[in-house]
Amino acid sequence: MAPRGGRLTDMADIQPAVILVRPQLGQNIGKAARAMYNFGLTDLRLVAPRDGWPNPDAGPSAAGALLLIDQATVYETVEEAVANCTHVYATTVRDRDMPKPVVTPREAAAQMASMIDVGERPGVLFGPERSGLTNDDIALADTVLTVPVNPDYGSLNLAQAVILMSYEFFQHKADVPAYLPAHPEGLADKEELVGLMEHLEQVLTKKGYFRSEGRQGTQRLALRNILQNAEFASQDVRTLRGVVKSLGRTRED
Amino acid sequence: MAPRGGRLTDMADIQPAVILVRPQLGQNIGKAARAMYNFGLTDLRLVAPRDGWPNPDAGPSAAGALLLIDQATVYETVEEAVANCTHVYATTVRDRDMPKPVVTPREAAAQMASMIDVGERPGVLFGPERSGLTNDDIALADTVLTVPVNPDYGSLNLAQAVILMSYEFFQHKADVPAYLPAHPEGLADKEELVGLMEHLEQVLTKKGYFRSEGRQGTQRLALRNILQNAEFASQDVRTLRGVVKSLGRTRED
Repeated sequence: MAPRGGRLTDMADIQPAVILVRPQLGQNIGKAARAMYNFGLTDLRLVAPRDGWPNPDAGPSAAGALLLIDQATVYETVEEAVANCTHVYATTVRDRDMPKPVVTPREAAAQMASMIDVGERPGVLFGPERSGLTNDDIALADTVLTVPVNPDYGSLNLAQAVILMSYEFFQHKADVPAYLPAHPEGLADKEELVGLMEHLEQVLTKKGYFRSEGRQGTQRLALRNILQNAEFASQDVRTLRGVVKSLGRTRED
Repeated sequence: MAPRGGRLTDMADIQPAVILVRPQLGQNIGKAARAMYNFGLTDLRLVAPRDGWPNPDAGPSAAGALLLIDQATVYETVEEAVANCTHVYATTVRDRDMPKPVVTPREAAAQMASMIDVGERPGVLFGPERSGLTNDDIALADTVLTVPVNPDYGSLNLAQAVILMSYEFFQHKADVPAYLPAHPEGLADKEELVGLMEHLEQVLTKKGYFRSEGRQGTQRLALRNILQNAEFASQDVRTLRGVVKSLGRTRED
């Protein structure tokens, strides 16, 4: 898709900026970096980190996402941190009186993916650990992002909020099927399945499983349904043929 | 929906069981409890926790989700922990050779919600912090649950895996709209908007903004489109009328 307005943007490089506003503990900055990087996000921005920057506590808790810690950009104000963003989300609790649209992380992720498709640059603000974003911070945002939580509890920490946003965004980027079948080589075909059924019935007949002529049809049908529903792979059928063969052996075989 | 087979199940009570298999640190059990409770899950089961149970490290990191720590059930084996489950998910990395279907957390959440609707009891296994679930653990599961992550990194910890599963399940339970408009009282109607436009145009005419007769139509149209696109609420229009009125004042007014 061509960027709007003829801008030449290297869109492969665009991703949501994760902006930690006045974060308190270096450890939590590291955890947020780790959360982001699990889902491919690398644009970490810090606004006035309480304990300065760099912070020696950030690296160890980043668990390998050191790249993000090294490349994090630091700003004095939220205004500077969002300067190149075209749309800003403020992560906070839902407030009925907020004169902003409110979206879930899933909706925000869908919106951000669409924005990035046309060369726009979204950013997401996360507030300090205890107090959260102020009204002045939120006034700089276009949209409020609220994670729906258990109304009786609701105790998401900073890294948890970051991971849920990052995870949702990654769902739009990752080319991962929701479902993979158990047998990539394919299920057994019906010829294999019928072969197993007939083999089993032959052995069971020999062993006297089908005692009453009248009930034999019902018993066979029940067995065939059980085997049919099991969704065996070809290899499963071969394994079970061996089992049946072994169970069918008599001393004379 | 009636439960299948005429079972009388109090379905309000059914929720996915979160089963931590041989968890190592009490702190991580607490974090997992906190992650669950944020999304309304309370059925925490522990299989052979390394440091025994109760563990004094679990409570402090549960951050208020103490109920889950107090009510957690403890088992010696995975078999016992899943005994009352009808479908078990094993959380692990995607392995092409695994003879089980593989699903994402989102797909698993949708499946579990459907199962619970008909009175079935799903459970989700999470392995020990370092080593993850063994093949013997996974053999007890029906389905593998894999979180799609950054292929270059992929360092989800136990509590992060638990929170993503819990979050996805909650999306099926929580009655939360994906989007709330900025103005619950409604946008300004067109009469209010046209009133603002005409007021602004009147003041601008007085101030000499429309210099050229020829361009006046274009200028007016541009302004009307700007105001139209802004999606003002009624209160916004009243505020802006005040602004325009104030800007229009001359010494003689």
